Amino acid sequence: MVYDTIGASPVAWAGKPYPAVRDAAERDGSVAVVPVGSLEQHGHHLPTATDTILADAVATTAAERAADAMPVLVTPPIWTGHSPHHTPFGGTVSLDGGDLLDLLERVAETVLAEGFDGLLLLNGHGGNGALVSSATSAIGASHRTAEVLGVTYFDLGADRIGEIRDSDRGGAGHAGEVETSMLAHLRPDLVDLDAAEGTPWESPYDRTRDDLSHPGPLSAYADFDAYSETGAVGTPELATAEKGERFFEVFVDEVGDVLERLHERAG
Amino acid sequence: MVYDTIGASPVAWAGKPYPAVRDAAERDGSVAVVPVGSLEQHGHHLPTATDTILADAVATTAAERAADAMPVLVTPPIWTGHSPHHTPFGGTVSLDGGDLLDLLERVAETVLAEGFDGLLLLNGHGGNGALVSSATSAIGASHRTAEVLGVTYFDLGADRIGEIRDSDRGGAGHAGEVETSMLAHLRPDLVDLDAAEGTPWESPYDRTRDDLSHPGPLSAYADFDAYSETGAVGTPELATAEKGERFFEVFVDEVGDVLERLHERAG
Amino acid sequence: MVYDTIGASPVAWAGKPYPAVRDAAERDGSVAVVPVGSLEQHGHHLPTATDTILADAVATTAAERAADAMPVLVTPPIWTGHSPHHTPFGGTVSLDGGDLLDLLERVAETVLAEGFDGLLLLNGHGGNGALVSSATSAIGASHRTAEVLGVTYFDLGADRIGEIRDSDRGGAGHAGEVETSMLAHLRPDLVDLDAAEGTPWESPYDRTRDDLSHPGPLSAYADFDAYSETGAVGTPELATAEKGERFFEVFVDEVGDVLERLHERAG
Amino acid sequence: MVYDTIGASPVAWAGKPYPAVRDAAERDGSVAVVPVGSLEQHGHHLPTATDTILADAVATTAAERAADAMPVLVTPPIWTGHSPHHTPFGGTVSLDGGDLLDLLERVAETVLAEGFDGLLLLNGHGGNGALVSSATSAIGASHRTAEVLGVTYFDLGADRIGEIRDSDRGGAGHAGEVETSMLAHLRPDLVDLDAAEGTPWESPYDRTRDDLSHPGPLSAYADFDAYSETGAVGTPELATAEKGERFFEVFVDEVGDVLERLHERAG
Amino acid sequence: MVYDTIGASPVAWAGKPYPAVRDAAERDGSVAVVPVGSLEQHGHHLPTATDTILADAVATTAAERAADAMPVLVTPPIWTGHSPHHTPFGGTVSLDGGDLLDLLERVAETVLAEGFDGLLLLNGHGGNGALVSSATSAIGASHRTAEVLGVTYFDLGADRIGEIRDSDRGGAGHAGEVETSMLAHLRPDLVDLDAAEGTPWESPYDRTRDDLSHPGPLSAYADFDAYSETGAVGTPELATAEKGERFFEVFVDEVGDVLERLHERAG
Amino acid sequence: MVYDTIGASPVAWAGKPYPAVRDAAERDGSVAVVPVGSLEQHGHHLPTATDTILADAVATTAAERAADAMPVLVTPPIWTGHSPHHTPFGGTVSLDGGDLLDLLERVAETVLAEGFDGLLLLNGHGGNGALVSSATSAIGASHRTAEVLGVTYFDLGADRIGEIRDSDRGGAGHAGEVETSMLAHLRPDLVDLDAAEGTPWESPYDRTRDDLSHPGPLSAYADFDAYSETGAVGTPELATAEKGERFFEVFVDEVGDVLERLHERAG
Repeated sequence: MVYDTIGASPVAWAGKPYPAVRDAAERDGSVAVVPVGSLEQHGHHLPTATDTILADAVATTAAERAADAMPVLVTPPIWTGHSPHHTPFGGTVSLDGGDLLDLLERVAETVLAEGFDGLLLLNGHGGNGALVSSATSAIGASHRTAEVLGVTYFDLGADRIGEIRDSDRGGAGHAGEVETSMLAHLRPDLVDLDAAEGTPWESPYDRTRDDLSHPGPLSAYADFDAYSETGAVGTPELATAEKGERFFEVFVDEVGDVLERLHERAG
Repeated sequence: MVYDTIGASPVAWAGKPYPAVRDAAERDGSVAVVPVGSLEQHGHHLPTATDTILADAVATTAAERAADAMPVLVTPPIWTGHSPHHTPFGGTVSLDGGDLLDLLERVAETVLAEGFDGLLLLNGHGGNGALVSSATSAIGASHRTAEVLGVTYFDLGADRIGEIRDSDRGGAGHAGEVETSMLAHLRPDLVDLDAAEGTPWESPYDRTRDDLSHPGPLSAYADFDAYSETGAVGTPELATAEKGERFFEVFVDEVGDVLERLHERAG
Repeated sequence: MVYDTIGASPVAWAGKPYPAVRDAAERDGSVAVVPVGSLEQHGHHLPTATDTILADAVATTAAERAADAMPVLVTPPIWTGHSPHHTPFGGTVSLDGGDLLDLLERVAETVLAEGFDGLLLLNGHGGNGALVSSATSAIGASHRTAEVLGVTYFDLGADRIGEIRDSDRGGAGHAGEVETSMLAHLRPDLVDLDAAEGTPWESPYDRTRDDLSHPGPLSAYADFDAYSETGAVGTPELATAEKGERFFEVFVDEVGDVLERLHERAG
Repeated sequence: MVYDTIGASPVAWAGKPYPAVRDAAERDGSVAVVPVGSLEQHGHHLPTATDTILADAVATTAAERAADAMPVLVTPPIWTGHSPHHTPFGGTVSLDGGDLLDLLERVAETVLAEGFDGLLLLNGHGGNGALVSSATSAIGASHRTAEVLGVTYFDLGADRIGEIRDSDRGGAGHAGEVETSMLAHLRPDLVDLDAAEGTPWESPYDRTRDDLSHPGPLSAYADFDAYSETGAVGTPELATAEKGERFFEVFVDEVGDVLERLHERAG
Repeated sequence: MVYDTIGASPVAWAGKPYPAVRDAAERDGSVAVVPVGSLEQHGHHLPTATDTILADAVATTAAERAADAMPVLVTPPIWTGHSPHHTPFGGTVSLDGGDLLDLLERVAETVLAEGFDGLLLLNGHGGNGALVSSATSAIGASHRTAEVLGVTYFDLGADRIGEIRDSDRGGAGHAGEVETSMLAHLRPDLVDLDAAEGTPWESPYDRTRDDLSHPGPLSAYADFDAYSETGAVGTPELATAEKGERFFEVFVDEVGDVLERLHERAG
Repeated sequence: MVYDTIGASPVAWAGKPYPAVRDAAERDGSVAVVPVGSLEQHGHHLPTATDTILADAVATTAAERAADAMPVLVTPPIWTGHSPHHTPFGGTVSLDGGDLLDLLERVAETVLAEGFDGLLLLNGHGGNGALVSSATSAIGASHRTAEVLGVTYFDLGADRIGEIRDSDRGGAGHAGEVETSMLAHLRPDLVDLDAAEGTPWESPYDRTRDDLSHPGPLSAYADFDAYSETGAVGTPELATAEKGERFFEVFVDEVGDVLERLHERAG
């Protein structure tokens, strides 16, 4: 099962001729999903597109499962994320925050002009989180008749993830146990578990995020070479494809709930 | 005690001649705080500058208490927030998100050029939250030798607030129990408790914020006239100046901790 | 008498609940005033917020006196001025010219969207003068049904000021006799007259401004350390609080005339 | 053979961990390729991502064949093209020209910051052509030590294409014989040849482009519903997968030549 | 004598090969002049380029006379001014204020990069006045080793003009006695004195400009069809070519003084 | 015959009073032409304004000849082109690409607001070519009821030029045989044929332009000091005023055809 081929999924906008897109948009309560990822260092064992692949896979799978009950399409993922904190390692393409905000607004503008009633920005990269939230407000304020949502998928379902993972808080960081497991499940061709080596996430501030499942109210800028020598933050050594499948199912399920409610509200 | 007069506080940048600002900036571990608020509808009983007054008061009081132990100054508050969701009521001045992001970046640029080692953007308005977080990343990435933080004060100390408040979840919303109480404590001249009337916060999505102390991972745009007829969301009817003092002390204390740690890290 | 506390004045937009703002805006010939100042060095004896405090005080007092005859509200002052020429001294927060122009346009846009019929940008900082004038044109051209004015208060009433002051041309410069006197009148807590030391304004070009009351047609960029060692340009040594009150009354009176005429035209 | 899966190709930046990207970038004469496509109507028989798929496939295949002789990586394709002229049909996501220009410049900036010596923007969408050329100049002028190229693949090899195609001038337009044939070869799952119906390209100006292989000096804006009822311009009815393979080989070969020379010059 | 042919003057940058420009720029105290005009309605009797022609003629003539004593070149005039207030009449091309500010800054940046020690923006259009002044500050702040000036030529020499003119205050407005006379002197082929018909300038505010020689401190936006039916404001009926020559000589002389002093300061 | 004096031509917008411009704009099928040039090095023998002069002369002459058959006006030339590749020589004023794109869009916006039915951007500088094409698309997309064209004049009539010129491919480059000949014909006062010395255009890529009459599909950035020591690329030594007249007639004729068709389509 390959979720990330351009246009291969039955819910992929990219793979459809325009009449099919137009027809979907015009149906009542129609929803468009825009996955937002990045291209950035993910340690020695994960590919640079990890966040793009995961956001795309979560969005597409959730939409496929919802497609019987609602008109929903997924655009290709935006891979030009905001990652200045990863540039010291190399392998990273990064937009400034304002530029990503602009890009999301412009994309949403033409997506909504197609006639979709609802829009979900589904983000997979921590560095994009606040910008996706900012974009949600900007887009919503400019398109008051549409229903506009934004979310970072790993901010959902923290309790359920906690039941599956083996690591303590700090283990599910950037390229840590959760991301590594999911990519080992979805794209084993791109993962080198033997090279997985990370440093558990210890933040200098106790009110900031220090785990995918433990966000914090305080925003603190730090280049990630302050956290880890390899670039991986957390304990990817604990990752397995089996747990990856379970993590993935949790996130797909959570996003599915969001889609269902979005469809109801947008109708 | 008046915290919000321009320049009256001993930690106010605005009230000092430039040699005093310069000297503070040049001391080891020096910190500048920029309060960020708004000018927007806050129901029938609170003034439009509520968030600006509160952000300014929290920042200034915390800094005054920290001033013996560290060099710290507070700029005047930025009152041009991002509030499109309040414009249906009137009384609101609002910048687009990208414009506020730019403004925060430009202000930070010249603040840091003065020689401060650390910067805290202290926000008091929900609609600014993601933008302040985005700005923190943008500023941090452009000033890698400085320590840059951003926070919305009411995202701190949720447990301690919970012990004081009388309302259930949904009661401490926009112009609700917490904000009303604090303003009744700090600026009774501007509060009309008799006019306090709100609607408890019920969000159409169960993963979004529905209380100052209950943030959620999902961002959903909604004009606030969907939540409340008066513009007040929560139960301002429960507000008292006494509770306001206690709420205020919690937030000042929490921000004080952040300042202390910021000073240590910036040194 | 304290004019500069957020929201304390009966004409302060900041201190009113939104229904009061909305009602004022909807009355015939309603006027909003936006004070524009700066945060920048003002010699060793005046605080960095001098221009913000003065613009705010002139605007608020003039509006209070006019309030019986017309619906008028004053927003909080914009303190993020354009002051690159003061940065060599320190203590200065400065926006680029284009950024300030954008900010003024964006603020005016939402102020006028509230329904005000007239707008006055009341500036107190020389470095903002041309930008406030530029903004007036931009705002006016975009809001052709509104009446839009901009002025730097000390460009008004030059003759009347001349009768009060003791200094010759060049003495009423940046942080000179006039500004120092007024601040000693309005905010004695922030003024250190003993530290007042300035250099009379001598411009290298005889067609440029060399006194608050002597503008010139030629614009010439110069960092202010070329004019003065302390940062004060003029003769602050001559300042007294008594003259300050008289200067202040002249400017309040002049701005009052402008408001009256603006109200008539906007009606 | 699947070229368009994120990260599956041995030359895909997306599929590599960062040390591999960094190492490639640091080798002498290293080259990065950025495919640029669109998401827009392509008649009733081709998917909206046609140009993105083709640009990505040409870039990736050419780079794979060149990879033995030179260090070369391909980023994911940029699919947010400039397509205002296709919006009347629906199914189209489009950036304004200036926004796409900015995006290309920002992406190139961080790609080149990785240490690549050469950059090729490989475009597959007519509407992007001038912007990619403009971006090449902007990027080159800002990165004078790098070698920067831009090209629209179907502007290459016109003579060789002419020997293969069956249509006359005007037949190889937007979603015409050439694009349809190539997609039938590369992604038969996304092509519905039975629905292929187009109108040969007749331009109202005889100096403008009227075929992929017949560019013209004159730029003339026209919405594409002026050219075709289905959105397809040309004769897709003549398309076959066999010709598609031959067309594809020509373009891959031409781009291979460009890469070879770019590597020599960048070394 | 024709001053406005591209490159015909001995001080025209446009007419010289690059080595001559480079050599001039490298001489001590070198000065570049950028005339700034407009293309806008000037009544029924003057051409739309009036302000461009006059700014160019004043700049070029003053520079020609100064050229023996100093290295000075004049660029072609910028004719894309800020004229929203003239658009109701037609015949007008206008940039927004921010766009003109940007253009002036960008032009100045590359002019100064050539090595010129001084720059004069010489403006001929009232609507550009504040923007030219704003640009002077922006350019000066960004190029602190250069000497940067800006001026609107008709703001110079008011007393001397007063001795020549026949009209009262209000007569020398837009397309009034002074502009009409000068154009009748310089370009009689473009002036139709028989069609000269204007309305003396009466401003609704007594603190605003109401004559080329009577500026005022108050900026008030007004479309010019509020002042005049023909578009001409003032008394062009009094214009003669003889007075035009005398007016022109005054302005050339005043600008010559500015150039001389600029050269001294820039050296 | 002088084509480049501001406003002297009967088709010059600049030389007409506004009622004449308005009347032309309102006629059926009215056309406005905006010449776009540059100010940049053109070897030791041609003036820096060469491209501006030529674009203006071609546009104006073609419009004069067409004026009997159609309403057509020509604005003054935009001389602030995109020329980073010429800055190493000096004598060059250059805008960034995005800034020129913005300027062309803004100018077109107000030109079309006058009521013209058609617009032609007539470019004379290679570095502007792609930007003028990009601007054509942007303007057309924003003004769908107008007919919008863009062209670089020397991309027209390549065959006819080939019959006149003496140089081989590579001889008609920047400041080469064609440009030098035309300027010698039009403005002999600005040409120094004795100083004409160039290097035939040899491009490092065989798919890029290497002659005014030989464009190529590949865009490659290069500073022009890589091509020529004097800055002239081609064989200006072969230039004569006689050939210049013939070249000029070809281009005027070609542009005349474009104008005729534009008028028909715009009507």
